[in-house]
Amino acid sequence: MENEKLWVRDLRPGLSLRSTFQAADTTVRNDSRGSPYLSCKLVDRTGSVDARMWGLPHDLRDGLPDPSYVRVEGHAHEYRGMLQVKVDRMQVLHEDQVNEEDYLPATEQDRQALAAELLQVGEELENEYLRKLFELIAGDEELWDAFCTAPAAKTMHHGRIGGLLEHSVQCMRVARAVAELYPVDRDLLIFGVIFHDIGKTEELSWGSGGFAYTTVGRLTGHVVLGDRIVSSFVGKIDDFPEDLALRLSHLMLSHQGEREYGSPEVPKTFEALLVNLIDNLDARVAMFMETTENVSGGGWSHHENPLRRALYVPEEFEEDGS
Amino acid sequence: MENEKLWVRDLRPGLSLRSTFQAADTTVRNDSRGSPYLSCKLVDRTGSVDARMWGLPHDLRDGLPDPSYVRVEGHAHEYRGMLQVKVDRMQVLHEDQVNEEDYLPATEQDRQALAAELLQVGEELENEYLRKLFELIAGDEELWDAFCTAPAAKTMHHGRIGGLLEHSVQCMRVARAVAELYPVDRDLLIFGVIFHDIGKTEELSWGSGGFAYTTVGRLTGHVVLGDRIVSSFVGKIDDFPEDLALRLSHLMLSHQGEREYGSPEVPKTFEALLVNLIDNLDARVAMFMETTENVSGGGWSHHENPLRRALYVPEEFEEDGS
Amino acid sequence: MENEKLWVRDLRPGLSLRSTFQAADTTVRNDSRGSPYLSCKLVDRTGSVDARMWGLPHDLRDGLPDPSYVRVEGHAHEYRGMLQVKVDRMQVLHEDQVNEEDYLPATEQDRQALAAELLQVGEELENEYLRKLFELIAGDEELWDAFCTAPAAKTMHHGRIGGLLEHSVQCMRVARAVAELYPVDRDLLIFGVIFHDIGKTEELSWGSGGFAYTTVGRLTGHVVLGDRIVSSFVGKIDDFPEDLALRLSHLMLSHQGEREYGSPEVPKTFEALLVNLIDNLDARVAMFMETTENVSGGGWSHHENPLRRALYVPEEFEEDGS
Amino acid sequence: MENEKLWVRDLRPGLSLRSTFQAADTTVRNDSRGSPYLSCKLVDRTGSVDARMWGLPHDLRDGLPDPSYVRVEGHAHEYRGMLQVKVDRMQVLHEDQVNEEDYLPATEQDRQALAAELLQVGEELENEYLRKLFELIAGDEELWDAFCTAPAAKTMHHGRIGGLLEHSVQCMRVARAVAELYPVDRDLLIFGVIFHDIGKTEELSWGSGGFAYTTVGRLTGHVVLGDRIVSSFVGKIDDFPEDLALRLSHLMLSHQGEREYGSPEVPKTFEALLVNLIDNLDARVAMFMETTENVSGGGWSHHENPLRRALYVPEEFEEDGS
Amino acid sequence: MENEKLWVRDLRPGLSLRSTFQAADTTVRNDSRGSPYLSCKLVDRTGSVDARMWGLPHDLRDGLPDPSYVRVEGHAHEYRGMLQVKVDRMQVLHEDQVNEEDYLPATEQDRQALAAELLQVGEELENEYLRKLFELIAGDEELWDAFCTAPAAKTMHHGRIGGLLEHSVQCMRVARAVAELYPVDRDLLIFGVIFHDIGKTEELSWGSGGFAYTTVGRLTGHVVLGDRIVSSFVGKIDDFPEDLALRLSHLMLSHQGEREYGSPEVPKTFEALLVNLIDNLDARVAMFMETTENVSGGGWSHHENPLRRALYVPEEFEEDGS
Amino acid sequence: MENEKLWVRDLRPGLSLRSTFQAADTTVRNDSRGSPYLSCKLVDRTGSVDARMWGLPHDLRDGLPDPSYVRVEGHAHEYRGMLQVKVDRMQVLHEDQVNEEDYLPATEQDRQALAAELLQVGEELENEYLRKLFELIAGDEELWDAFCTAPAAKTMHHGRIGGLLEHSVQCMRVARAVAELYPVDRDLLIFGVIFHDIGKTEELSWGSGGFAYTTVGRLTGHVVLGDRIVSSFVGKIDDFPEDLALRLSHLMLSHQGEREYGSPEVPKTFEALLVNLIDNLDARVAMFMETTENVSGGGWSHHENPLRRALYVPEEFEEDGS
Repeated sequence: MENEKLWVRDLRPGLSLRSTFQAADTTVRNDSRGSPYLSCKLVDRTGSVDARMWGLPHDLRDGLPDPSYVRVEGHAHEYRGMLQVKVDRMQVLHEDQVNEEDYLPATEQDRQALAAELLQVGEELENEYLRKLFELIAGDEELWDAFCTAPAAKTMHHGRIGGLLEHSVQCMRVARAVAELYPVDRDLLIFGVIFHDIGKTEELSWGSGGFAYTTVGRLTGHVVLGDRIVSSFVGKIDDFPEDLALRLSHLMLSHQGEREYGSPEVPKTFEALLVNLIDNLDARVAMFMETTENVSGGGWSHHENPLRRALYVPEEFEEDGS
Repeated sequence: MENEKLWVRDLRPGLSLRSTFQAADTTVRNDSRGSPYLSCKLVDRTGSVDARMWGLPHDLRDGLPDPSYVRVEGHAHEYRGMLQVKVDRMQVLHEDQVNEEDYLPATEQDRQALAAELLQVGEELENEYLRKLFELIAGDEELWDAFCTAPAAKTMHHGRIGGLLEHSVQCMRVARAVAELYPVDRDLLIFGVIFHDIGKTEELSWGSGGFAYTTVGRLTGHVVLGDRIVSSFVGKIDDFPEDLALRLSHLMLSHQGEREYGSPEVPKTFEALLVNLIDNLDARVAMFMETTENVSGGGWSHHENPLRRALYVPEEFEEDGS
Repeated sequence: MENEKLWVRDLRPGLSLRSTFQAADTTVRNDSRGSPYLSCKLVDRTGSVDARMWGLPHDLRDGLPDPSYVRVEGHAHEYRGMLQVKVDRMQVLHEDQVNEEDYLPATEQDRQALAAELLQVGEELENEYLRKLFELIAGDEELWDAFCTAPAAKTMHHGRIGGLLEHSVQCMRVARAVAELYPVDRDLLIFGVIFHDIGKTEELSWGSGGFAYTTVGRLTGHVVLGDRIVSSFVGKIDDFPEDLALRLSHLMLSHQGEREYGSPEVPKTFEALLVNLIDNLDARVAMFMETTENVSGGGWSHHENPLRRALYVPEEFEEDGS
Repeated sequence: MENEKLWVRDLRPGLSLRSTFQAADTTVRNDSRGSPYLSCKLVDRTGSVDARMWGLPHDLRDGLPDPSYVRVEGHAHEYRGMLQVKVDRMQVLHEDQVNEEDYLPATEQDRQALAAELLQVGEELENEYLRKLFELIAGDEELWDAFCTAPAAKTMHHGRIGGLLEHSVQCMRVARAVAELYPVDRDLLIFGVIFHDIGKTEELSWGSGGFAYTTVGRLTGHVVLGDRIVSSFVGKIDDFPEDLALRLSHLMLSHQGEREYGSPEVPKTFEALLVNLIDNLDARVAMFMETTENVSGGGWSHHENPLRRALYVPEEFEEDGS
Repeated sequence: MENEKLWVRDLRPGLSLRSTFQAADTTVRNDSRGSPYLSCKLVDRTGSVDARMWGLPHDLRDGLPDPSYVRVEGHAHEYRGMLQVKVDRMQVLHEDQVNEEDYLPATEQDRQALAAELLQVGEELENEYLRKLFELIAGDEELWDAFCTAPAAKTMHHGRIGGLLEHSVQCMRVARAVAELYPVDRDLLIFGVIFHDIGKTEELSWGSGGFAYTTVGRLTGHVVLGDRIVSSFVGKIDDFPEDLALRLSHLMLSHQGEREYGSPEVPKTFEALLVNLIDNLDARVAMFMETTENVSGGGWSHHENPLRRALYVPEEFEEDGS
Repeated sequence: MENEKLWVRDLRPGLSLRSTFQAADTTVRNDSRGSPYLSCKLVDRTGSVDARMWGLPHDLRDGLPDPSYVRVEGHAHEYRGMLQVKVDRMQVLHEDQVNEEDYLPATEQDRQALAAELLQVGEELENEYLRKLFELIAGDEELWDAFCTAPAAKTMHHGRIGGLLEHSVQCMRVARAVAELYPVDRDLLIFGVIFHDIGKTEELSWGSGGFAYTTVGRLTGHVVLGDRIVSSFVGKIDDFPEDLALRLSHLMLSHQGEREYGSPEVPKTFEALLVNLIDNLDARVAMFMETTENVSGGGWSHHENPLRRALYVPEEFEEDGS
């Protein structure tokens, strides 16, 4: 039996555990034999898992405030194709007994490596103005740090510390492949796809209390905020070509693809169109992957997710380990 | 019979005319007895009127390029409740035989008086920052001149020289009345309602060739352009309150009311909501008035107009002279 | 400590209270330390306020039926920018221990004064037929009384005793200002804007049990009901001009502005268009004001409200006391 | 070769003709060998057929006004699966040389027989109030005559003299069958389905100039007009049950089924729901039949028709003669 | 007092009962005097009814799992126009104490008689290919059994054992009447309307655990599954006419009527259009009837039902016993 | 001056020409000096270009049938940023004077090379069932030939001989890059993205008369047709895994992404989602490229194109020659 923090990503059927988690979405119900049980999600920065507890002590009969920190003893098993924790003992902790950061969802990837990959791409831009612009943005320590830390969304996709960075890197990788296949202004596409969501650094906050929208984010939106950030750096570069600035600004403003998604204009240049399509591709792929994370082979996800449909994970998928 | 330029606004049933117009939408058709006739609109800066010509000389049998300048002899009469000109003679003129400005639609109102009314309102703003901001904008000669000259649209409403000014003044007048009735930040409402469309000075061009969208207008849109213009002046005022700047920017960005109309955010403050409602009221009223301009009492307009419905002008309306 | 009925509108941070309210939306939850507390809204005819109670006696552990009448001891304070009552003692009362009318939302304005303002406007109509029509309607005691008492809606806006009157008066005031600015048939506009919603007197009921839709209201709708009411009075006036009756009826039927909102036709006359625009303006303004009533400066309302978006109340707004 | 009026419905491939028609949608084009030809539709009260004419005399080179009356010599043949007339000679006639009524589309059915069928059904209603109501409506000579003459629409379906009657009878027949299958208030359903569109007698005009919307039709709509007609007769019957009147009125008002189609309320009673469904069934069936009238087996209709899709007529369908 | 199973359909106000049901949607609330009571629905294969229980024993204070099997003592009465059971005693049973099939909703009609009616219709088809096709389908024991057993939906309409059969028979009856009134290919219409939903035999499962979607159902949909079933039988018939097969397949694929409802093509043949209209008619009628099953005369249903609106049952409707 | 066929793709400003084209969209208008001119598009299999001709001989005064074959003498120049041909002489040819195939739009790429690239990819599939399936499809000579010849659409994108092949290859290339970046079933994705549109080989016809929809294509649609083609080959492979067949079929059926675009189900597996996203990306990119083909740097395309917006080609884009 483990006494150390056991991370959610490391849970496997059959494993016993004694560890601390955030408990969310707690409810108390009766089972089909009339016995009350507690149902909740155990969360930490590496993911979340469903849990059930029977034989409730008196202080748990009314459930728990949402969220709470709890010390849990029990073991993991598979139930209807989804991993589940059966809890034997559960003790509520006070906020100052835990390191809150451990319970804020965060990327599992190496953020420094991702950032380094972007910086490398920035250095290799052939267009001198865009290369200089990249350099200025990456050189603004506060902004760059926010860019590498921010979530890409509150709930839709990449809603985790470093999520914006992950999304930007993955979009950049797709864009590099696409630029080989179509006659596009490669540098503008690469630059645009990396920074299209930079306004999210001002639209969202990601303190220990969780992810939230800022007031300026709600009143202005990340689309215009991002355009302003990039424009302010463009203004610092002498002789930045006016036409390039215009196309870059258009790309920032139109990246949502449709007006009803918050873009004041739809994409009207080749690079703006591609940024929108690549952003959309990576976003929807992430929605799929995040929704099916806990679904075993042959199973279906819940219907409530950003794609608004139940998703299927085939049998053999799991066998491949992919 | 007139030999001088007779303006469209001065045409009355029974009047003979010999004057110059722009001819638009020209077509040649046969009437119910099989005789060919020419149908067109005669346009000048004061309005437009339908015209018909029978007994076509050979050079008019194939119609006219659109638009053309023509010298017309004929007389005005009423036909199915709409004013119409029956043309006896029509001679095509060359562009350098006319003063093109006379044929660009333009407001009938006194633009200097309208501008003066706005300046007066600007001086009376109680909020010192907004008063200063108004002063700076009105003091930028090129911008102010454009603001007093630009059309408010290519075709939707107020599509005429000085149309933006007319729309801004009328919105301001409604806003002043509304501010008496609801607990609103009066100065911000007045300021916002006057300048909500200022981005149209960059979105549109209005040279002698007619009204058109600029490239920056199509790629950025007047909503963001307007926000940038106002923001650039805000940046010139020391200590401009951040919260006021934010609310002002929100108002500029959200004035279209819905995302699908090009606003990246919907109105979320009281003043932003009211600017959208007042803008919408004056715009739709103008659509109504411009569409029914030539319809007599008891008649119906065409279906094709910005309100996308046939509009009715009642009998007694005309009698009132209103 | 107060022993008299203390109205919700008079609550201020720091005030102690001992008074009776309706308790609504009651739930019992645990706080972050695991202690159970009761959350509810305290309602009376002047408004509503959030309340919390800890240290629950046994009979409150399962909450309260919705709605209940309660006698409350406690004090008001500000929590996260919203007024809140901390309850020390709470006693459930029986319906016959209270005056139910005190707990039905009602306008804070002087209904007699509002009605008098309308009557004055009615007398000043220049069109003799509309003036006579107004006189007949105002002279039908039962109808006029209902018109001055009915809510304007169940929940959307002006959902309070006298709400229809408030809405009608405010629309009339806006219309009077608008009639100065556009060449409209002033009398028809004024008359129409006052009575556009008169069908709500039959669509809704407002007994002590709260506001509800009637069967005829659900099967016919206030749009057609209102048209029928006005038509029935038109029928009592000899020689009422047919064209005026038609335009008035069209205005009643089209005032919702779009077919999907329940108008069988869209506005096709100038006055009908303006009635719809003014109705819409006052309705949306009321939605804004009612939603932000309890939000302090710098705060955001909930997302769930008739405008379907979180609304912002700026810092300085509160300072102005407006 | 015929010298008598040959009706469109009697045209067959191989038939020669010398007869008078209305010519509509006339255009002059060049064929693939560069020769000009005239294309038009020949119309009379029994239908319409495409026609082509080569070897144009000078006075036809510019086409014909729309519509014109023409005397045609030529013969009918099949072209790409559609009946077509090849014209050898065409002479334009004056309006007073024809009987205009012969060229207004009209039902091919026996209107007296259809009306008699309805009257019979009316007499057999078991509900005495509805039977009396039917009697009053059928007894109002002017109304009943209009009901038996009016088209059911300008263009959508049953756009022909007697079309409203045809539609009403066919709906009644479907309703009788449906009433055998579901536990519905048979009399109310039958009555409602017969008169649901009676408002079209006031919404449309059908003089010799063709079918048009009236002013009251455009400002009020046939839905409310129909409800008013029926209500006025209800008011003449003593003790007409209030609940029945309410359900009847609801059925009239909601028969379009959805608010965006002009019904102020959606169907909320069983009979109202069925009236909407049966009306919709007969309307869409008529759209299909009218669109495919001239399409031979194995062919496709044009895309432009009220169903907004190309329609297919199978091979064997024609063989059946159905 | 009854000791035997008393079916829900046989409950009447005033009846005492002692019987077994499935209890669903159980909640515990306090009444207006603060007393806790249990609210649930009692379900069996013949329907469902609301129930209330006061004086809760300790083991029912936390409610019941959903669903549970319960033995109930109490009596039926009418409350606000809806039948309700007041429970005196309630005992939870184990699954193996009941016959689960008794609690799965099932048609009240004689399934054998319905199937026999269809077989008779099949034999009378005049088109030899469709008659043969019908014979093959009805002769496939497993498929025919599924067709006669499956529900027509999970929740929308006919969501009960035998529901697909009921829907198919009722559609066939309507189609037979319609075929008398319009020039349609009767055999294809009858055949199509009977089997349009046959894909539901593979889309849904209806074991004792209730009704659910299968994996192949979710990934393929009943529209394509049904087309495949019919096509596979068509392939077994020599010389089945290609055009008939195409029209039949089109009818299967397009029967949802609109693409957004899951049909890859819209109806483009007469029979396909009618199948869609008749399917829609019977489906909406069923939604109405199932929603208003427990509503007494003069009452309104809940708003939450497949028609998304409250439905009205008139006073006299009940009196008629219809 | 050229006497040989000069292809549209080889036209450059300044070049004189004497060559044969298809003339489309011909109209005759008057210029601003009143002189008539002919405007048309000159088309061949390599593209299309606008043309103008003044000094019209008599036989061209009425324009040309659409389409015609013409022998043209003239020269190419640039006008308002678009290439244009000024025609000096134009002679109409008969269909048998030209090789019609030369005037059907066709890919400029080497179809054999594209097909070979696909075959290579097919051989390298690791999944033996998909590899075998690919082999069978590619081995069906008639099908494979159609697949390599068909257009991908009538007008939307890739509407040219070989367009389906181009689209399939480009999608495959994008998919290969994407498969490196996400944990997808690579073989299923590659296979699916290549053949997702194979149903177009039956939905469209591409004879010398141009591109058209077939009857089976209109009644069934390429989505279901493609699923049937692939399924029929799956049926020929022993032991083809059922789950794989299901996922493959789902991918074929759902590739349009949304029901309103003709997919009976939305993508619910990872590979189906990616096929839809990649298909969409290549399709929209092609729409952009085809629309802007003739637009010079700094210019705007027309508004009428499949993306329904004017598109911008920046200045420097042209300079790069990209």
